[in-house]
Amino acid sequence: MNHLFDSGNTAWLMMAAAMVLLMAPGLAFFYGGMVRTSQIIAMLKMCFVCLAAVTLIWWAVGYTLAFGPDAAGLGMIGTLDHAFLRGIGLNSATGDVPTVIHSVFHMSFAIVTVALISGSVAGRATMRGWTVFVCAWTLLVYVPMAHWVFDTDGWVAKQVGAVDFSGGTVVELSSGAAGLALAIVAGKREDFERRPIRPHNLPLVVIGLALLWFGWFGFNAGSYLSGPGSTTMAFVNTQFAAGAAMSGWAATSYWRTRRVTLLDMCMGAVTGMVAMTPAAADLTPVWATVIGFLAGLSCAFAISWKYRLGVDDTLDVVGIHGWGGLFGMLMTGLAATGAVTGKKGLFYDGSWTLLGNQLVAVLALGLFSFVMTAVIGKAVDLTVGLRQPGSMVEHEQAYDTDVASQLQDVTDALGGAGRAADRSDAGQLIDQLRTLLAAREGH
Amino acid sequence: MNHLFDSGNTAWLMMAAAMVLLMAPGLAFFYGGMVRTSQIIAMLKMCFVCLAAVTLIWWAVGYTLAFGPDAAGLGMIGTLDHAFLRGIGLNSATGDVPTVIHSVFHMSFAIVTVALISGSVAGRATMRGWTVFVCAWTLLVYVPMAHWVFDTDGWVAKQVGAVDFSGGTVVELSSGAAGLALAIVAGKREDFERRPIRPHNLPLVVIGLALLWFGWFGFNAGSYLSGPGSTTMAFVNTQFAAGAAMSGWAATSYWRTRRVTLLDMCMGAVTGMVAMTPAAADLTPVWATVIGFLAGLSCAFAISWKYRLGVDDTLDVVGIHGWGGLFGMLMTGLAATGAVTGKKGLFYDGSWTLLGNQLVAVLALGLFSFVMTAVIGKAVDLTVGLRQPGSMVEHEQAYDTDVASQLQDVTDALGGAGRAADRSDAGQLIDQLRTLLAAREGH
Amino acid sequence: MNHLFDSGNTAWLMMAAAMVLLMAPGLAFFYGGMVRTSQIIAMLKMCFVCLAAVTLIWWAVGYTLAFGPDAAGLGMIGTLDHAFLRGIGLNSATGDVPTVIHSVFHMSFAIVTVALISGSVAGRATMRGWTVFVCAWTLLVYVPMAHWVFDTDGWVAKQVGAVDFSGGTVVELSSGAAGLALAIVAGKREDFERRPIRPHNLPLVVIGLALLWFGWFGFNAGSYLSGPGSTTMAFVNTQFAAGAAMSGWAATSYWRTRRVTLLDMCMGAVTGMVAMTPAAADLTPVWATVIGFLAGLSCAFAISWKYRLGVDDTLDVVGIHGWGGLFGMLMTGLAATGAVTGKKGLFYDGSWTLLGNQLVAVLALGLFSFVMTAVIGKAVDLTVGLRQPGSMVEHEQAYDTDVASQLQDVTDALGGAGRAADRSDAGQLIDQLRTLLAAREGH
Repeated sequence: MNHLFDSGNTAWLMMAAAMVLLMAPGLAFFYGGMVRTSQIIAMLKMCFVCLAAVTLIWWAVGYTLAFGPDAAGLGMIGTLDHAFLRGIGLNSATGDVPTVIHSVFHMSFAIVTVALISGSVAGRATMRGWTVFVCAWTLLVYVPMAHWVFDTDGWVAKQVGAVDFSGGTVVELSSGAAGLALAIVAGKREDFERRPIRPHNLPLVVIGLALLWFGWFGFNAGSYLSGPGSTTMAFVNTQFAAGAAMSGWAATSYWRTRRVTLLDMCMGAVTGMVAMTPAAADLTPVWATVIGFLAGLSCAFAISWKYRLGVDDTLDVVGIHGWGGLFGMLMTGLAATGAVTGKKGLFYDGSWTLLGNQLVAVLALGLFSFVMTAVIGKAVDLTVGLRQPGSMVEHEQAYDTDVASQLQDVTDALGGAGRAADRSDAGQLIDQLRTLLAAREGH
Repeated sequence: MNHLFDSGNTAWLMMAAAMVLLMAPGLAFFYGGMVRTSQIIAMLKMCFVCLAAVTLIWWAVGYTLAFGPDAAGLGMIGTLDHAFLRGIGLNSATGDVPTVIHSVFHMSFAIVTVALISGSVAGRATMRGWTVFVCAWTLLVYVPMAHWVFDTDGWVAKQVGAVDFSGGTVVELSSGAAGLALAIVAGKREDFERRPIRPHNLPLVVIGLALLWFGWFGFNAGSYLSGPGSTTMAFVNTQFAAGAAMSGWAATSYWRTRRVTLLDMCMGAVTGMVAMTPAAADLTPVWATVIGFLAGLSCAFAISWKYRLGVDDTLDVVGIHGWGGLFGMLMTGLAATGAVTGKKGLFYDGSWTLLGNQLVAVLALGLFSFVMTAVIGKAVDLTVGLRQPGSMVEHEQAYDTDVASQLQDVTDALGGAGRAADRSDAGQLIDQLRTLLAAREGH
Repeated sequence: MNHLFDSGNTAWLMMAAAMVLLMAPGLAFFYGGMVRTSQIIAMLKMCFVCLAAVTLIWWAVGYTLAFGPDAAGLGMIGTLDHAFLRGIGLNSATGDVPTVIHSVFHMSFAIVTVALISGSVAGRATMRGWTVFVCAWTLLVYVPMAHWVFDTDGWVAKQVGAVDFSGGTVVELSSGAAGLALAIVAGKREDFERRPIRPHNLPLVVIGLALLWFGWFGFNAGSYLSGPGSTTMAFVNTQFAAGAAMSGWAATSYWRTRRVTLLDMCMGAVTGMVAMTPAAADLTPVWATVIGFLAGLSCAFAISWKYRLGVDDTLDVVGIHGWGGLFGMLMTGLAATGAVTGKKGLFYDGSWTLLGNQLVAVLALGLFSFVMTAVIGKAVDLTVGLRQPGSMVEHEQAYDTDVASQLQDVTDALGGAGRAADRSDAGQLIDQLRTLLAAREGH
């Protein structure tokens, strides 16, 4: 009907974009289930701030700076030609799909990337500081990196010749490096090292993982615009790597503690998909599985580093996304078949070239993200404030169960002041109960 | 292979139908998380009643009355030619997709629309009355409206010339008007105005929102059968509007209370997508964003009206879907580019025609839905009974946590009568605990 | 672009594979919400073991044994030619879609099938025994059955001539028969017949159902590779049957108990989709609806049989999947239109041939699965141990809510030993509370 576009590829890219956008709440549940009850509202809000702010920024200038015509041919940044998606209409094509869906597919990457960073400062960032950080980081860190790597005119894509389709550097390594920087800037929780994070709601963590897993097929396979062969290969390798990585992480965990927890399995699955982000379709299923397994195995070690370094990367953004992305990038330098890109790894053409290129990309983007995040984080902390003074205060209560109401009834029965007009929260109820019991203990 | 159909467009429409069907449980979680623990089972059941009843009605007569050959050329209703999907086979085409999937895509709209209304009588409708209402409303209100607006032979589509692709009137405004009428018929909760609804499970609300958001891409973009250009534009504008509306609602909330809650963000996102239902692909991304922002801003005010009117629209169906749909319809009259329909808004051709047409559609469908719902609701209430006498009694317990079991153990330890045979619920446990403590207080 | 593949069919198959993979966690939530709080972690882990183990097995040898070239032309098993997906590249096609996605689509079936069995031994299987069972069952039971039925060279497909597109036998009946065998091998829970399973978290059950329902469209419609006409018919019949089956189950439940619970609705919906697995596109919508209704009606009876047989099929795998799959297979023998396969049921050509063929397939696969499962289950039990001695001990706590923390505070206030270093769980807190209260009761 419309010969500009391939309706099948477009259908898949729409689907992929919807799936990646679903990763944002998925991540919110994954993170939110892992923190204490008193902090889940803050984790969910941090994620929704990203959904709102990055959508607007991407629409306004993000897309054109990342994917618009290259400014001055330097490969550093795009021009503002397509600010507010100006000049892009129903018939604008990128490859054989409409430009608008290419734009929003990449918007979803930006949202997920900055949302990932929130795990490193879980439970101790102000919402105001986080909001400012999200805007600044998206504009000053994500958008340039996306131009460098994902745009064909970007300097990493063009001059370095690294292979990174779905963001082994731009998304994973960069969020890991940013998480490290921001965790340092924000400082430790008071009880870091004394009190490990214990998930308050493991089923919610698994709901989050389910959405992340589902979305990751869109994330990795949607990044290939060249049609069925490469998209499906990216898809299946994502699954192989996830399954293998669960086993790898489980192996490490069993070796260390003689136990494999549900959380081990969840974290393991994520690491495999992280390691597939650079070049899921440029690997054979065998290498995808091997890389996935090794990613799970090594990430399970990597998350302990924070205790040695004394950095409170609360939900392990560095160990999983930083290390996982870096590992995937380097393994791509070894095992890439070149089926899609023509760029072969060491194992396929005996040359160290691709590995070198991957290393350059890793160093460039890792350092850029780390330094920029430290600067932005510090600036935010010194102005609007990034670190929450004292403990989190969220006025919304995540759960308001009957048990809480029933404890109120107990309080009432014990002679309390009756049901407070504005329905006091469970904490208050308990305070009353405690006071009453203590008083009775006394006389 | 099969030259009747475009496999890409078909793939997308199947996907879109699956996504919209996922909105039904999504809405159940969104609503269910917002009510008290004792009412969530009822909210989930109200939604599942829609899934079962509307599926059967649509299959039997709904589809043919809405999309079958127009009866007598009046544009009022279809004939029964395709009752039970008679005469529709593997090779029946609607545009370049199979007719059966077009049918089920629109079935999913019917399910979601009537499910939306449940929010207006949350916690106080009988399940029997609700079930009868759902059947009657689908047949007598939804099906005719769908014929008028979505079928090319319908009088609104043909004679009024309003633009409404995904149900700004049929779905959103009509459920809002119906919610208003039903809330009036059902009467207020006893504690309306005294005790605001407090969500018992905010993460569940967010799970619901996540599924709604995901599904809305299918909802808005699946409504365009003309291929990649318009479907993708509808898709991206849905996202822009959602992001902008979150900001708009947040702005209102911050201006009024100096706080932005997670619930504000969730409600805001919904309003943006509501406002995109009339013509998501017939707007530029700039107008989509502006309309989304204004929708969020104004809906945050609109939900307060219920207190002034004294109508207990419990979960704000009127303020969000009624006002949001109406606002989106009128803004379409101003800002439609005509890219898909050829019908341009005031800003594009200086003519008030489209705005007038939109207004006619709004008035016609709003009034029709309001009046019909009031009549049906009253008839149901007078016969099988719509309003629950007293408070909700659901025999199923939503959560049966260890804390409840453990309180039982405490009761047991305090000398209670032991574990009741049929496992008493937490309320009973607490009763025992209270009694025991009170007794000990006495001696 | 690539003339080997149809991009639309490929897009749909990728989507379908992602949707079916989402059924695995969906099932975990469905099952997990239905058991007690102390057992949900085990249910989720059992499901994730399937995700990891079956992925690796399928990649290594499962795919080639099921879909590789037939060994010796007997239709019994494939060769190892494509072990580790060797020889399958970016350009390998199965029909008009890439072979790799066909492979992973069927992998997702294997994962879901073995995960289904976990419901029959909920709350009493060791994780070690389950893991070994999963590996053995996938290799020795699922893989051969998939070759027999789904591969065009398989003996059931070729010589028996039964119609089973999406696993009425391979997935549903076989998991039901396996569930029966495994429940017998594992033995009853101590409190079977005394204490019915009460869902600890009904909203989680519904979240699971929502994902299962969504995924089932991929499951049933993805099984047709011949394009839009048949895929969409499979899709819509799945929806009709689900809606009708909810009504059928509700009818049975109302007739028996004068009540319809939310759980009734959820179980009902599942049975309709089960009954559509054999031939969703080879039925008219009318027959799909009738079969769905009867499936719901009869499965609601079928789940009571376990009490008569004295077999503790804890979450009703036999009654729902076993009976539902068998019923769907036989009804296909009656009502198949032959639109896709050319094989017509009794009602369409007056011949009992297809019904006979369906019966042969049912008997062959049902018996094979039952006997093999019994042997494997017994072997596992005698070696690594299948039955958990005593009650489940999972070290992870599913929920760690503030209520638990607040009870700790009460304990502290009552003079307890203070907050335990490793944060004792709610059970311990209650123990302390109980002890303290009992002690105070004494003096």
